[in-house]
Amino acid sequence: MTINSFVKTQGLGNEYIVLDENNITFPLTEKAIQTICNVNFGIGSDGILVKTHSKKADIGLKIFNPDGSEAEKSGNGLRIFCKYVFDYKILCKKQFTVETKGGIVNATIQETHNNRASIVTVDMGKAIFSSPLIPTLFECQEVQDQNIQIEDKNFQVNCVSLGNPHCVILKENLDVDEIKKYGPLIENYSKFPNRINVQFAKIIDRKNVEILIWERGAGFTLASGSSSCAVASVLRKKGLIDHLVTIHMLGGYLTIEISEEFNIRMTGEVKQICDGTFHEELINSFV
Amino acid sequence: MTINSFVKTQGLGNEYIVLDENNITFPLTEKAIQTICNVNFGIGSDGILVKTHSKKADIGLKIFNPDGSEAEKSGNGLRIFCKYVFDYKILCKKQFTVETKGGIVNATIQETHNNRASIVTVDMGKAIFSSPLIPTLFECQEVQDQNIQIEDKNFQVNCVSLGNPHCVILKENLDVDEIKKYGPLIENYSKFPNRINVQFAKIIDRKNVEILIWERGAGFTLASGSSSCAVASVLRKKGLIDHLVTIHMLGGYLTIEISEEFNIRMTGEVKQICDGTFHEELINSFV
Repeated sequence: MTINSFVKTQGLGNEYIVLDENNITFPLTEKAIQTICNVNFGIGSDGILVKTHSKKADIGLKIFNPDGSEAEKSGNGLRIFCKYVFDYKILCKKQFTVETKGGIVNATIQETHNNRASIVTVDMGKAIFSSPLIPTLFECQEVQDQNIQIEDKNFQVNCVSLGNPHCVILKENLDVDEIKKYGPLIENYSKFPNRINVQFAKIIDRKNVEILIWERGAGFTLASGSSSCAVASVLRKKGLIDHLVTIHMLGGYLTIEISEEFNIRMTGEVKQICDGTFHEELINSFV
Repeated sequence: MTINSFVKTQGLGNEYIVLDENNITFPLTEKAIQTICNVNFGIGSDGILVKTHSKKADIGLKIFNPDGSEAEKSGNGLRIFCKYVFDYKILCKKQFTVETKGGIVNATIQETHNNRASIVTVDMGKAIFSSPLIPTLFECQEVQDQNIQIEDKNFQVNCVSLGNPHCVILKENLDVDEIKKYGPLIENYSKFPNRINVQFAKIIDRKNVEILIWERGAGFTLASGSSSCAVASVLRKKGLIDHLVTIHMLGGYLTIEISEEFNIRMTGEVKQICDGTFHEELINSFV
């Protein structure tokens, strides 16, 4: 592998730059990460995934946000990293473990095309339904079908945490204008002290659900891994879907598997965009 | 050079992907260009520069906008392309001509660093002051110190075309909030039938001018090549600056040279970000 080389890969339009820490000649400072992730002065990406060594798992992964801070986990980031590990023959097997800041994750390369991973499954952790742990300020133990009044409208909310807080609302019809109007108001509702991600969900059948997403801090968004897991967890708890369900979003779809203990696995497509080499003129701008 | 390879380079944060038309295996359709320029599903860039053959000049260049349409010219794009031509030894000289859809352009590699172009000069064409050609609906032949009333404020405008229309306003102090408030109103003022780019300009001395930019259709922007040329042309015509002037913008600076006939040359820094290869998984998504 060339010195200072990188790979850029996307899953449902969420794209990451993947690096090997042993293969870069510069320190990955905040300024370096910010510059690389900036589309005008760098490559442009939603974050950087760094391959590291692990004593506890088959391989180690550090995930960096575009502002330079380290993230605990990212469902799309994990799937993208696993594709890199498989495609570049860093591990020559289809099942392996990855150590992240958020814990050890199991990964499976589900499908390949031309010897490259096309569909990847990763652990997304356990769904937490306990109201104070999500957190919400509702006094019930779990938040199910709780009525909340937002301006002229009543919503029945179901809450769950997947590391981040989610609020799922069942709908007979999905309306983009409605989630754009009420999403920010639900996000900031007084019972959600850390604000909340909002999903409108329409059940097609026991194996298929269609959703719209309002992401905390980011607004209306076309696809989200943790949102898909949140919807599947809530609907499974209600007994409305099977343990394996496909979540259809405007930006694509993900398959979610829920165990009896509500451990979640997420399966979805990943595609490599390019590989490349950082130019010394870029590196000189941040070292 | 590897098949399907590209180079990404920026000038003042304006970044382009450079390709050789003989080196790509796919047709450059609208969908291909849109996908490559999209930061989520492709590389991400402000456009694509394609090296072509020319019978009239040393080399040919096609410039594509991110929506897939072809552009006549782009000052930053031209400088970036010339750096590519020099750095990759496509032409082994520091002065050459480039055929574009907008005409034949002279280019000079002004400074190099490690045998790579760092500062490049390109022709930007002739400044046009004729009111109907800009176009404006003012009945005077040229628009100089013309008073216009925008809500509570009076502005003295000076208009010029560099292929696109510009409106330069001299200020004693530059105020970002002011251009953000009045920029869109001046852009859409009734006397500018094709709307207009707006610059607020503060003269530091005969060799240095500081400007703020409101770009037609794009809004407040940190740097612009044609805006720098517009300001320099207007101020030179008024006799307020020398024929060689540095235009300081929030995103960086450019040096503008104005001949007696108001032919304009622009000089500025360019930096390569990376080189890379489009992955077949990306190519398969648009062919």
